[in-house]
Amino acid sequence: MKRIAVIMCGCGSRDGSEIQESVTAMYAVMRHGLSYEVFAPNDDQYQVTNHLTGEVLPEKRNMLIEAARAARAEKIHSLDKLNVKDFDGLLLPGGFGAAMNLFTFAIDGLDMSVRADVAKIIHEFHDARKPIGAMCIAPMMLAGTLQHCDLKITLGPESPMKDELRQKMGVYSVESPADQPITDERNRVVTVPCYMWDKATILNVGDGAYRLVGEMKRLMEN
Amino acid sequence: MKRIAVIMCGCGSRDGSEIQESVTAMYAVMRHGLSYEVFAPNDDQYQVTNHLTGEVLPEKRNMLIEAARAARAEKIHSLDKLNVKDFDGLLLPGGFGAAMNLFTFAIDGLDMSVRADVAKIIHEFHDARKPIGAMCIAPMMLAGTLQHCDLKITLGPESPMKDELRQKMGVYSVESPADQPITDERNRVVTVPCYMWDKATILNVGDGAYRLVGEMKRLMEN
Repeated sequence: MKRIAVIMCGCGSRDGSEIQESVTAMYAVMRHGLSYEVFAPNDDQYQVTNHLTGEVLPEKRNMLIEAARAARAEKIHSLDKLNVKDFDGLLLPGGFGAAMNLFTFAIDGLDMSVRADVAKIIHEFHDARKPIGAMCIAPMMLAGTLQHCDLKITLGPESPMKDELRQKMGVYSVESPADQPITDERNRVVTVPCYMWDKATILNVGDGAYRLVGEMKRLMEN
Repeated sequence: MKRIAVIMCGCGSRDGSEIQESVTAMYAVMRHGLSYEVFAPNDDQYQVTNHLTGEVLPEKRNMLIEAARAARAEKIHSLDKLNVKDFDGLLLPGGFGAAMNLFTFAIDGLDMSVRADVAKIIHEFHDARKPIGAMCIAPMMLAGTLQHCDLKITLGPESPMKDELRQKMGVYSVESPADQPITDERNRVVTVPCYMWDKATILNVGDGAYRLVGEMKRLMEN
């Protein structure tokens, strides 16, 4: 059975991983007859946010411990235990929190950096030609890591950073509906917008996750 | 479009609502062409638990604020805003936390009580003959509320409390696989075991949620 590694970074879109994207991604993996394990950095989140009001709270929460709420303890491991050899594909749910915890787009825009351990893992999957799937804002993490590979991604609506992405990073951004993944065959990268569209629903997210994993599966078989 | 009210009580199986059950339930509602709104009590959780280790933490977290992580702010409301007239069905995800926050089975066993506001809402749906769906341990909340109605529920494996449930509460408990709901036609109650089975997976949970909502929809149409 093909195995997918999922990287989370907390539990909640505003300060960690988007939960609906993460859960429907895990469900999609099993609906396609694949298996998964979840990994998260054993470090504090960049911040903690009240998800009802948006207020930033004077608290600390750990990415691994919080992600265990959605993944359940038996399926989650510290990110430093992720061995690319053990997996056939990599799946990256989104969330504004991912863009603070795993890479810094939400803070630094296109001057972002990607966590060194995460960038190394992405490079290893890419070098091994194992498919990588990314949801919502997570394709921007691939843009930051796989620069000048002629990477083609979607960020939902046409990106105002489209030209800068192409000139600065050699990344092509294409508009796509919330539940429709686009596939970069050459880089074996599949991306789907989900909550990058304001009006997306959990139906779009779940269906997008299902199609994304379907594309990853197809790439694994070719 | 038929509308389902979902009641959550935090974000995580050990101290709030089971996240995979809650998210796949919301997704199932929309897959069946129905809509939903989520409600949670605006009160502190009974406790806060490290979901990686099981350790109880000296922290406070609010059920409504935490549930907003999984439901997203635009879809969640304080429980006191739930007006049964606005909805066609009620959906109750499980989680050990639900059995501390919404009713006290995890603390008191069959001497449990059910939060007064939650019991009132359950009675109103039941009296109006609007379908009620409950997942995992949440059927026990219905047992505690709808006593002596010849209620038929599943709690997964055959319950060691089966006889006591029948004698004390007039509730019939039936074994069922993790992803197979059972329907009490007379009471218009549908229940599905999900994580009541130790070895259940997110596939069982998601498929069980989908079938549960399918049964609720059928009951709504009859």
